[in-house]
Amino acid sequence: MTQDKRILITEVALRDGSHAIAHQYTVDQVSKVAKALDEANIPYIEVSHGDGLAGSSLQYGLSRTHELELIEAAVAVCRQARIAVLLLPGIGTMEELRQAANLGVKMARIATHVTEADVSAQHIALTKELGLEAVGFLMMSHMAPVEKLVEQAKLMESYGADTVYVVDSAGALLPHEVKERIRALRQHLGIPIGFHAHNNLSLAMANTLVAIEEGATRIDGSVRCLGAGAGNTQTEVLIAVLERLGLSTGVDLYKMMDLAEEIVAPILQVPQEITRDSLVMGYAGVYSSFLLHAKRAAQKFNIDSRDILIELGRRKVVGGQEDMIVDVAAEIAKSRQEPAVR
Amino acid sequence: MTQDKRILITEVALRDGSHAIAHQYTVDQVSKVAKALDEANIPYIEVSHGDGLAGSSLQYGLSRTHELELIEAAVAVCRQARIAVLLLPGIGTMEELRQAANLGVKMARIATHVTEADVSAQHIALTKELGLEAVGFLMMSHMAPVEKLVEQAKLMESYGADTVYVVDSAGALLPHEVKERIRALRQHLGIPIGFHAHNNLSLAMANTLVAIEEGATRIDGSVRCLGAGAGNTQTEVLIAVLERLGLSTGVDLYKMMDLAEEIVAPILQVPQEITRDSLVMGYAGVYSSFLLHAKRAAQKFNIDSRDILIELGRRKVVGGQEDMIVDVAAEIAKSRQEPAVR
Repeated sequence: MTQDKRILITEVALRDGSHAIAHQYTVDQVSKVAKALDEANIPYIEVSHGDGLAGSSLQYGLSRTHELELIEAAVAVCRQARIAVLLLPGIGTMEELRQAANLGVKMARIATHVTEADVSAQHIALTKELGLEAVGFLMMSHMAPVEKLVEQAKLMESYGADTVYVVDSAGALLPHEVKERIRALRQHLGIPIGFHAHNNLSLAMANTLVAIEEGATRIDGSVRCLGAGAGNTQTEVLIAVLERLGLSTGVDLYKMMDLAEEIVAPILQVPQEITRDSLVMGYAGVYSSFLLHAKRAAQKFNIDSRDILIELGRRKVVGGQEDMIVDVAAEIAKSRQEPAVR
Repeated sequence: MTQDKRILITEVALRDGSHAIAHQYTVDQVSKVAKALDEANIPYIEVSHGDGLAGSSLQYGLSRTHELELIEAAVAVCRQARIAVLLLPGIGTMEELRQAANLGVKMARIATHVTEADVSAQHIALTKELGLEAVGFLMMSHMAPVEKLVEQAKLMESYGADTVYVVDSAGALLPHEVKERIRALRQHLGIPIGFHAHNNLSLAMANTLVAIEEGATRIDGSVRCLGAGAGNTQTEVLIAVLERLGLSTGVDLYKMMDLAEEIVAPILQVPQEITRDSLVMGYAGVYSSFLLHAKRAAQKFNIDSRDILIELGRRKVVGGQEDMIVDVAAEIAKSRQEPAVR
């Protein structure tokens, strides 16, 4: 057991937040935000395209600035904070990981779908080989039953991960579901457990507190809620709540409040509210990339896109299976035309 | 015991939300919002100035439209929803309560500071005399210890209140504090218990779920988070979460999502985010009216306004004691000039 007592925060506004501003970060913005976060004593700052290293593409959204430039800028201004990167095997490669390490990155988070931990083995191994801290990042964790999640987390541990995260990518987990997941991982793993929330159901803070209560010590936050969907656990608010609860993070609350208001808020183009789309995503437990496809299919079949999304969530359809969206829409439309069973 | 099993929602966007738009509601806006809420099957809709009946004033903010006109408009469009009003004795009078009842209002919520329930006796009595449902509304509930809260709630029950609410006006309560308060009220009162949250610490949903778990059956929400400070529990999100938890509200989720997006969102001038000011208010547990005074005093004494607000919260300073703000600022400034004790 290497569990720390202190809660270690990873700030994700410069990675997950990239989604919220269509990947338009400039070197100047990243330098200012990273410098202020460093001065507030945030221990880890993640910098990458929203979909991880090499995410910049027509499919995932083109970055305004090459992420290696942004990483370099962040590394340059930090005195104590360690820069982290996200890598989704299949999008990013071993080569990008080496480049990031060369720039002074200290932690790599290797992210896979919750049932596909096996694709992370080589990347976790390389992360350790490069002398970086390795984090296994199990996305869409709400889609797997607890036993499956434990099995996948143990795989990541066996590959050498120093920490494994439960990642609620769709903001779909309910507090009791977080509780059973973190509890099970604590029982079955010997490494620290982390939690990454999204606020689509307005439960990011609730779920984060439950995770901490159950022993998670690595927690993600995004300052001013700057993350995909409805954003993440709002970092400066989390610091305030943890102080009120008597839990130590080492982070300076006033400095966090100030940088949120003065440096990060002006970067936001669209407010981080819980809109209909982000709510539907959390309620149905689906990828945000499904939304547009579902709306098109709904129009074609004259049905409600939400019925499609909820059915996709029920069937646990994953990224890459977008062709199923039209099939599901057709089925729903057909079932409505049939006479009701008496 | 007259406890219902169903969770009964009171929508407060047309009352608490009035703060968020500087009391600028028009008859047209209120008609449209109330009609859509009624069609979504919301059981109670509160309509009043943000500070309750007769709140329109230089001190509390002038309403653009007389609230009786807004109440009349809401009553006119509702087929099933009951219109409620808020009344703070000292701001509103018995006369306004009679006028509201004449317009077809079915519920009055009589609000006092958590330690001043005794000023609600006559207003609760009149509410019952007029044939309305009477709710006791204990504001700034975080300021009183649990025993005091129970004592004050019992007073309201003894005056004839049909329901008593724990009101977290500053958004300052932590989940375990909500738990012990609702639990104690359930043990000591025979009437239904309600909960009204604010989201200043991003805990509105967390606290609302804890309140429901402990047996609260009357819950306030504001659609699109349209309430004072950082807003309240976001109603359409709450309906989604309660559905996921298998709890019945009778409210139509899709209709709530649609009215939030299409009717309420366009009314908002400023997004309902957790800003530095609303966070400080929740962290310190003080009235929002203290913020401006504290900033002025901070400038005068060259200190941080947050230190003043936190000290005011510690001393449990209440509305009407604004003169203490400069005293506290002076003390803080003085203590900083004294040589450190060795």
